Amino acid sequence: MQQIKIGLIGFGTVGAGLVDSIGKNGDLIAKRCGVLPIITRIADLDIVSDRGVTLPEGVVLDTDAMALIASPDVEVVVELVGGTGAAKQFIEAALKLGKPVVTANKALLATHGEQLFALAKEKGGEIYFEASAGGGIPCIKALREGLIGNRIKEIYAILNGTCNYILSVMESDSRDFEQVLKEAQAAGYAEADPSMDVDGVDTAHKAAILASLVFGQWFTADDVDIDGIRQVTLNDIHYAASLGYKIKLLAIIKERAGRIQLSVNPSLIPRRSMLGHVNGVYNAVWVNGDIVGTTLYYGRGAGREATSSAVLADIIDVALNLRRNCSNRLPAFPIFKQYQGLINKDELLSRFYLRLQVIDQPGMLAIISGILGKYKISIASVTQKEEIGEKASVPMIILTHQAKNRDMRMALNEISQEKCVLGEPVLFHIEDLD
Amino acid sequence: MQQIKIGLIGFGTVGAGLVDSIGKNGDLIAKRCGVLPIITRIADLDIVSDRGVTLPEGVVLDTDAMALIASPDVEVVVELVGGTGAAKQFIEAALKLGKPVVTANKALLATHGEQLFALAKEKGGEIYFEASAGGGIPCIKALREGLIGNRIKEIYAILNGTCNYILSVMESDSRDFEQVLKEAQAAGYAEADPSMDVDGVDTAHKAAILASLVFGQWFTADDVDIDGIRQVTLNDIHYAASLGYKIKLLAIIKERAGRIQLSVNPSLIPRRSMLGHVNGVYNAVWVNGDIVGTTLYYGRGAGREATSSAVLADIIDVALNLRRNCSNRLPAFPIFKQYQGLINKDELLSRFYLRLQVIDQPGMLAIISGILGKYKISIASVTQKEEIGEKASVPMIILTHQAKNRDMRMALNEISQEKCVLGEPVLFHIEDLD
Repeated sequence: MQQIKIGLIGFGTVGAGLVDSIGKNGDLIAKRCGVLPIITRIADLDIVSDRGVTLPEGVVLDTDAMALIASPDVEVVVELVGGTGAAKQFIEAALKLGKPVVTANKALLATHGEQLFALAKEKGGEIYFEASAGGGIPCIKALREGLIGNRIKEIYAILNGTCNYILSVMESDSRDFEQVLKEAQAAGYAEADPSMDVDGVDTAHKAAILASLVFGQWFTADDVDIDGIRQVTLNDIHYAASLGYKIKLLAIIKERAGRIQLSVNPSLIPRRSMLGHVNGVYNAVWVNGDIVGTTLYYGRGAGREATSSAVLADIIDVALNLRRNCSNRLPAFPIFKQYQGLINKDELLSRFYLRLQVIDQPGMLAIISGILGKYKISIASVTQKEEIGEKASVPMIILTHQAKNRDMRMALNEISQEKCVLGEPVLFHIEDLD
Repeated sequence: MQQIKIGLIGFGTVGAGLVDSIGKNGDLIAKRCGVLPIITRIADLDIVSDRGVTLPEGVVLDTDAMALIASPDVEVVVELVGGTGAAKQFIEAALKLGKPVVTANKALLATHGEQLFALAKEKGGEIYFEASAGGGIPCIKALREGLIGNRIKEIYAILNGTCNYILSVMESDSRDFEQVLKEAQAAGYAEADPSMDVDGVDTAHKAAILASLVFGQWFTADDVDIDGIRQVTLNDIHYAASLGYKIKLLAIIKERAGRIQLSVNPSLIPRRSMLGHVNGVYNAVWVNGDIVGTTLYYGRGAGREATSSAVLADIIDVALNLRRNCSNRLPAFPIFKQYQGLINKDELLSRFYLRLQVIDQPGMLAIISGILGKYKISIASVTQKEEIGEKASVPMIILTHQAKNRDMRMALNEISQEKCVLGEPVLFHIEDLD
């Protein structure tokens, strides 16, 4: 039986999950592909804590990642450290030795991907990264191999389990963002500092990776127009529901007339769409290819087990390439600039959800619709909510037809200066997924 | 630029779609993987009809499939003839020459897969078959590679677009099976002889392929317990809807205590589940892996373009294996008998939906529940429908808790002999997908 010798850097939750998964299913994997995965070395700053997993016999556990990388007992380096600091040095060191790398590190790839893949190419190494977007869902393999014959027109994706959990529970339990966030933190579904998740940064990292992959040119998180979910209120979720929509934090990756849209926004999507039914910590990637049409990939977007599953698949791809002498069988990020860069944010077209708090007097709609009309923004529906009890102001919800971002922002600016409009207007995109 | 020379046998709808797709995206594919796909020969009995596609320059179009297979200008044979007759001879001829084969032929693989893959192994050839189940969805790649680290516990899948279209339209338009079938035939969504689809045979072929793949032992369509959708009435669809369910033709592939369940049944599934939202001609494959948990793959299950997309992905896999000298990099159907065969059909456990037409008199429920109780079948809910106008009989719908198939059949036999029960009872499985 052939083997593949694995060096694991980062013995945290996912690292322990990987050790567990290989212990459990290593023999099955060997039967399936003819190569037995064996962890020979593990490096972590903490070599004391009990991870609750049985270490494979003979494994070396120490704090010396560089020794692990250089060891002849390590053929593939699995980087599960995360972040853009030490992890980058580890990956560079491995690639410089021509060793293949498997990583789940979306922040690193979305920031330094171009440089790392160039180094891999130069040294004949490989980087596999299935776990960097969509967790356990084999969506990178689907995009890179399964849909290789397709020009990808658009991807809409739910890529952050924490945000999707918070938005789902806000709706199902009718509770506020802050309450649900606190509970999610207590339950371990959200970090103590939740900003990477709830401000959309993590989703933007993943979006940049998927966009680079399908469009064949490098994008970083800086290219992504990002809005998080902090401004989504329970009221908005309920209003959206009554109009047939759900609010999801959506990564939007589109090609239009040779330019690329890359954004992460809380967006209204049809309740009855497949993406509308993705709840809790689940992720999903909706892909429209010019030949295959619409496809969707769904599963757990994070967590010990799901991430291990993706890392394992990558390890086996690397193992087969090594044992069959076909490293770089399929180029990871073939770059062929065929698009003319990003769509100017001002020029982005979409439908909009607009919520205003207006004084409860006649003539309010005439004022608002007048301003929208001035900017050629056409109204699809208006709902004025009755409030219980006598109140001086009421919410007005407007759904628009397609409009330019710039026109909408200018109209909004003018609307918010009207005396009859109280507080800040709330604006979300609507994506009809058609 | 490296090339891969393709011989296409079968120039029907999908064959023409493949020619079109390569014409459209061949250059893009070459940029992505470094190998340009080129169709050099096409064989079909009909070389006269206009398929509405531009043939690549220099392509040989004739009726001689065997000459195509033997030609030095053909490196990979794409079989799109279908059926278990000539197609088998073509594939065998190609494999005997050691040439790799790409096929969409589920009937052939579900019948003679064992023999064909043995021949491929003997001669060093390969068979790729992504399009044989799930159409354009790269679900075979997901199961074979993306989830290679997982022991698959169960698969629930909607694998026949015709059946799913008919059931979807019956519900959305409140029309009978026969009416919708006729319309589907007129629109080209169903064959003139629809039995392969509506009687569940096509789904069983695909289920056998998926089961063989994930469990590592051969199953044929004969191993599948098959029921089609002809007995699904509009009333059943409505009753199921009122109880929170949809009726779908489901392929069920499960491992329980070392034995395998393989069945194709019209089944009630929760309306709110992801599979419950798969409508029209779409297919979806719900997979539960022991590490990754639940994942789902969704897309068009048939048709010119979707099938071409899957065939193209296979061609590129073969091309990379050839050009990088790593044929059989990953064994297609590694066989390692680890299960003790099929679960005896009598022993199958599931919940049931039972519809009876009973005389509208007091005491009916006592009689029915008495018989069910005798066979230790526990009732989860009962609904007795009021009929408009005075009728002598009314429908009674019973949902049971888990029960053995044999017990249910025996109870049903006894129930149908009661004088108060009119006509044939209707029985469907309930799958809660949890």
